Amino acid sequence: MATAQRMRTHGIETGVLLPGPLNAITDVAGVQVGHSTLISGDSIRTGVTAIIPHKGNLFQQKVPAAIYIGNGFGKLVGYSQVEELGNLETPIILTNTLSVPVAANALITYTLRQPGNEGVQSVNAVVGETNDGWLNDIRGRYLTETHVLEALQQAKDGPVAEGNVGAGTGTVCFGYKGGIGTSSRVLPAPLGGYTVGVLVQSNFGGVLEIAGVPVGKELGRYPYRERLQQQADGSCMMVVITDAPLDARNLKRLAKRAMLGLAKTGGIASNGSGDYVIALSVAPENLIPHTPGDGLYASQVLHNDAVTPLFLATIEATEEAILNSLFAAQRMQGFQGRTIEALPLQQVLPLMKRWGRIRQR
Amino acid sequence: MATAQRMRTHGIETGVLLPGPLNAITDVAGVQVGHSTLISGDSIRTGVTAIIPHKGNLFQQKVPAAIYIGNGFGKLVGYSQVEELGNLETPIILTNTLSVPVAANALITYTLRQPGNEGVQSVNAVVGETNDGWLNDIRGRYLTETHVLEALQQAKDGPVAEGNVGAGTGTVCFGYKGGIGTSSRVLPAPLGGYTVGVLVQSNFGGVLEIAGVPVGKELGRYPYRERLQQQADGSCMMVVITDAPLDARNLKRLAKRAMLGLAKTGGIASNGSGDYVIALSVAPENLIPHTPGDGLYASQVLHNDAVTPLFLATIEATEEAILNSLFAAQRMQGFQGRTIEALPLQQVLPLMKRWGRIRQR
Amino acid sequence: MATAQRMRTHGIETGVLLPGPLNAITDVAGVQVGHSTLISGDSIRTGVTAIIPHKGNLFQQKVPAAIYIGNGFGKLVGYSQVEELGNLETPIILTNTLSVPVAANALITYTLRQPGNEGVQSVNAVVGETNDGWLNDIRGRYLTETHVLEALQQAKDGPVAEGNVGAGTGTVCFGYKGGIGTSSRVLPAPLGGYTVGVLVQSNFGGVLEIAGVPVGKELGRYPYRERLQQQADGSCMMVVITDAPLDARNLKRLAKRAMLGLAKTGGIASNGSGDYVIALSVAPENLIPHTPGDGLYASQVLHNDAVTPLFLATIEATEEAILNSLFAAQRMQGFQGRTIEALPLQQVLPLMKRWGRIRQR
Amino acid sequence: MATAQRMRTHGIETGVLLPGPLNAITDVAGVQVGHSTLISGDSIRTGVTAIIPHKGNLFQQKVPAAIYIGNGFGKLVGYSQVEELGNLETPIILTNTLSVPVAANALITYTLRQPGNEGVQSVNAVVGETNDGWLNDIRGRYLTETHVLEALQQAKDGPVAEGNVGAGTGTVCFGYKGGIGTSSRVLPAPLGGYTVGVLVQSNFGGVLEIAGVPVGKELGRYPYRERLQQQADGSCMMVVITDAPLDARNLKRLAKRAMLGLAKTGGIASNGSGDYVIALSVAPENLIPHTPGDGLYASQVLHNDAVTPLFLATIEATEEAILNSLFAAQRMQGFQGRTIEALPLQQVLPLMKRWGRIRQR
Repeated sequence: MATAQRMRTHGIETGVLLPGPLNAITDVAGVQVGHSTLISGDSIRTGVTAIIPHKGNLFQQKVPAAIYIGNGFGKLVGYSQVEELGNLETPIILTNTLSVPVAANALITYTLRQPGNEGVQSVNAVVGETNDGWLNDIRGRYLTETHVLEALQQAKDGPVAEGNVGAGTGTVCFGYKGGIGTSSRVLPAPLGGYTVGVLVQSNFGGVLEIAGVPVGKELGRYPYRERLQQQADGSCMMVVITDAPLDARNLKRLAKRAMLGLAKTGGIASNGSGDYVIALSVAPENLIPHTPGDGLYASQVLHNDAVTPLFLATIEATEEAILNSLFAAQRMQGFQGRTIEALPLQQVLPLMKRWGRIRQR
Repeated sequence: MATAQRMRTHGIETGVLLPGPLNAITDVAGVQVGHSTLISGDSIRTGVTAIIPHKGNLFQQKVPAAIYIGNGFGKLVGYSQVEELGNLETPIILTNTLSVPVAANALITYTLRQPGNEGVQSVNAVVGETNDGWLNDIRGRYLTETHVLEALQQAKDGPVAEGNVGAGTGTVCFGYKGGIGTSSRVLPAPLGGYTVGVLVQSNFGGVLEIAGVPVGKELGRYPYRERLQQQADGSCMMVVITDAPLDARNLKRLAKRAMLGLAKTGGIASNGSGDYVIALSVAPENLIPHTPGDGLYASQVLHNDAVTPLFLATIEATEEAILNSLFAAQRMQGFQGRTIEALPLQQVLPLMKRWGRIRQR
Repeated sequence: MATAQRMRTHGIETGVLLPGPLNAITDVAGVQVGHSTLISGDSIRTGVTAIIPHKGNLFQQKVPAAIYIGNGFGKLVGYSQVEELGNLETPIILTNTLSVPVAANALITYTLRQPGNEGVQSVNAVVGETNDGWLNDIRGRYLTETHVLEALQQAKDGPVAEGNVGAGTGTVCFGYKGGIGTSSRVLPAPLGGYTVGVLVQSNFGGVLEIAGVPVGKELGRYPYRERLQQQADGSCMMVVITDAPLDARNLKRLAKRAMLGLAKTGGIASNGSGDYVIALSVAPENLIPHTPGDGLYASQVLHNDAVTPLFLATIEATEEAILNSLFAAQRMQGFQGRTIEALPLQQVLPLMKRWGRIRQR
Repeated sequence: MATAQRMRTHGIETGVLLPGPLNAITDVAGVQVGHSTLISGDSIRTGVTAIIPHKGNLFQQKVPAAIYIGNGFGKLVGYSQVEELGNLETPIILTNTLSVPVAANALITYTLRQPGNEGVQSVNAVVGETNDGWLNDIRGRYLTETHVLEALQQAKDGPVAEGNVGAGTGTVCFGYKGGIGTSSRVLPAPLGGYTVGVLVQSNFGGVLEIAGVPVGKELGRYPYRERLQQQADGSCMMVVITDAPLDARNLKRLAKRAMLGLAKTGGIASNGSGDYVIALSVAPENLIPHTPGDGLYASQVLHNDAVTPLFLATIEATEEAILNSLFAAQRMQGFQGRTIEALPLQQVLPLMKRWGRIRQR
């Protein structure tokens, strides 16, 4: 289900930094992504996406982490322990709102079973979600632990499938079909050469902008000018991973910048939106051992003064990941016969061209 | 399993305010508590406790709420939505660490099934936990949704069973058997006459003090004087409910004060402790309708200047609820043949008497 | 120093909502703004801007308020009390970094002197700042309490002077001259008809975008593509005032959205940026009396579900206020002979036209 | 004004850990404390206390730091930058509520003047306060920058004057004369041997407890049993310094524990209380250079699992510092002829003896 249809293939570029080779979260070495997609009958349109930060035993070798709550109308689990201890000890699962407990349970199962974790009695599962209840019979709660474990097993390096896949199967973004999207940025060598990768599950509203072009306004697809013409609600889960050596405090700052990227797509973080950003550093030298040894932990982290380029990279990669989710997603019919159209490229591309945003090649 | 063995029955009093008739969280009108206790074979020692704030449809008539994270090494779910929206829409479930997802799933089931909730597609389940893995085979994950629904069904007014019951079945506090405890305070009429009720699931460490008497020190049961003699880790879940008309902001402040009550028992909020306080106001005039009507919401809340007596009430009721959990809990043998003794009253009571803390009657 | 040179006068529009009559923070009834500008000799380029929320005694009739810290590398004072108590009791002063104490002292003087405040012994002065040390001899600390009191005295209704005025006298934004800017939005009547006004002191960096056009990139004025070509640091103070009846919790959410507006101008909230948003509701029915009376405080506030249009209004008004600051500001020479150019309209306007962003009239 | 009258000299001990040689914040190597006391005529009873973390240039060699807001009804300045950047760059000044701006201005002066800081244009002054307006004519604002600079100049190693001195000159605690107090704890060698020192400015209320003895209740000096008999309001500033290598995240956790120490003295963090804790690590190997060099910053910090003993040390030292402030402070007459009595030792000591809390020697 990976698609050639990414924003840049149309000649549209955003930002000033350059993407990595895959323009995906998997440009960060060691990061793996897996999907489990559940499409069945007329009404089931949902799934699971798993992000595995590194290939070792994550519980035993935790990664520095932070979570920023852009707008907290959501059901993400795992927040407080990540914030208190500054680390992540399970893969990240994204799924639908009512399947969060199932996914958390599966992460516990996954962790307890992993060789080396025989004595583990406490697991901080981190699961995010958005609500796919427009296209999916969400109350049916069809996802099982098996689907979650499957997404974890499927996780791999390389290109990441986008659009109607995994946790993005049934999501809606700016009134069009949303889904999974990803992007990355690589800093110039003099700035450290670090990579920042972002993966999103897009399911939110606002007034769509693509590379600065007010597409939503031009196409008349936006809420609130006169009255509530269209629901702006929805949510966005954002995962930011970098190989830059950042501690939890600076990862929190990185996470906050992802919301600035969302803003540039026209997102407004509406009341009903659950907008969360999970940020991780997978710099190998800063993995945090579960067992403390002599109690001291050596690390080498970036000085505050060196983090700004990573902020810019996060903003750009988040913006593009969201846009990629729209470019990749396809028309979907689902629950109660509802249909959500794909981003209408036949209208959007001419608009982009007219506004000078399609690069000639 | 309700017990006559409460701290005050021994003539020990703490604080300056007076408890309500039951000296329990159920002194707040409408509040119901239910337990489901799972004791089976040699190794299963766990359970579920449910707190239902009012008897209506809580999803449709939400209550103002806040959650304070004393120390976030825990797995409580539901935090961000309560904080963002300032309300609670499900009962509160307490259970063991690895059963949080099962409990959250059960709360979703409970809410979706409730008459009037046919259209509900999003539920913010609030579940807290402590880790009973010392006495309970926690990795076995024996609790099911049925146990959780049973605790909800059992919920009732009146006296609350304490000690080795529900979510307190397998917990350990200051090295002694802990469990569920509850207490309340009623403000004098000139200060509003409001009631504050607290229920705790005690599973933490430190240097035990009872009514100011350094029991832990006297009995030689404490960590860190010389070296790590005893684990101080563990957690405490605290639920504070009042009928005072407080908005979410002042409920957050109330919640913070519960940690001061914990401090007075000798708790130290150790690194491994998940210490959370959930505070609710059930003042009937301030219930928050799920459906917003015309968008305006009238409320009458206490002025900042009027909240201090409620702070004192929260501190006192939390301290006593924790102590009640210790007085009520009984010796328990469990997982891997381990035994945790009850608070040794035959040693403690003479000590309290010697230090002048047993009131003559 | 008010200028006809505002962005909309050039035919450039952003957003989908409509501005109020003045397109200024003073569109919110009762709000007053005053400036004191200090330009002297070669090196002194600084000033003070005062925002007075209502015309009564603000200490005695406080307004609901919240402060969001976008990036905390700044010296704003007054944060914790606003957050704890949910209200504001002094006017807001903006000035330069090293003059914050002087301004806070002046606010104390102002409040103590105000008739009716004879018994006041505690004043929570709220002062924000950005660092104008590039153009201004900031270490000289030339501002005095008199300048601050003058800005307060000058405060008035009506159009607001923008650009190189008051606290914006010496600031720099995206490498061009920044300063004070303001804008407003009015919701359609079916959405409540409320007004949101924003005033900014712009002094930050990033990759400038105007109405979606990547001006910074096109003009080659941005940091980080190759190496650190240009400092992105700096700060932005944002003040958001609405007449919508919001409590402090929802004002905090409004405040967070201002950062999304900043993002749309290309701001990246760099490490060195002090980005703060102060949000107030001046709805007359919800003023908070200093003296609590019987302790109960009645209010009528917007339901969570009704706030999203205000979020959109905040985003749009913040974006436009920042852009207005750039359109209004003029070339300035200052400290150590440094010069900062105004936004080069002769380059920008053709660019905007080419990209289709100048509306034909 | 240093006094032999400390709590331990009366044979009263609290806690299980041992104090350092001075039982003072200056047990942490390099820490210096200075006071400037202003007592003049009938009405002026105020002052300044300065805490200098190390003897180098603090702006150029910053220390990891965090600030916890126990209750935010106060005017502390410097919060957001400490939290954002995780460090402190000026000494800490404590003073009265309305003199905070003067003190902040003095810290700017101090920093700008310091050799090596010639290029500094931005200073994050950290100043805390409590309100001494009961005994001091606070509206007169008699403190000047000179007093602040004097306190900085007076700062020295060794024993710390307590009670009616510096910022504690006019404060009131539990209805008795409060003031400056200090204490320390040293961890056993197997736990790292680290020292934690605490200094407080005590000016708050509640129901006094000394070493667990309910002194306030016994002496009938407490609020809220029947009605508002006595104001519980007031504030407490707490400074915690350790030589343990903690990063800002774990320092924030340390700071939170100081509130647990306050709780054990009977403090209730009333609505009107400004309770702030500033926590620093002065471990020499973790000083943070102002100039980032190559952008990477090496540090060796304690693992989360090793911090709990420091939590206990913080709780104990805070409790004892507050009690020391009460034991040291003496009767004071001041503004409008008001008198505040010292802690009545002639009543308290017999009570402590009766309750078995005076150790035989």
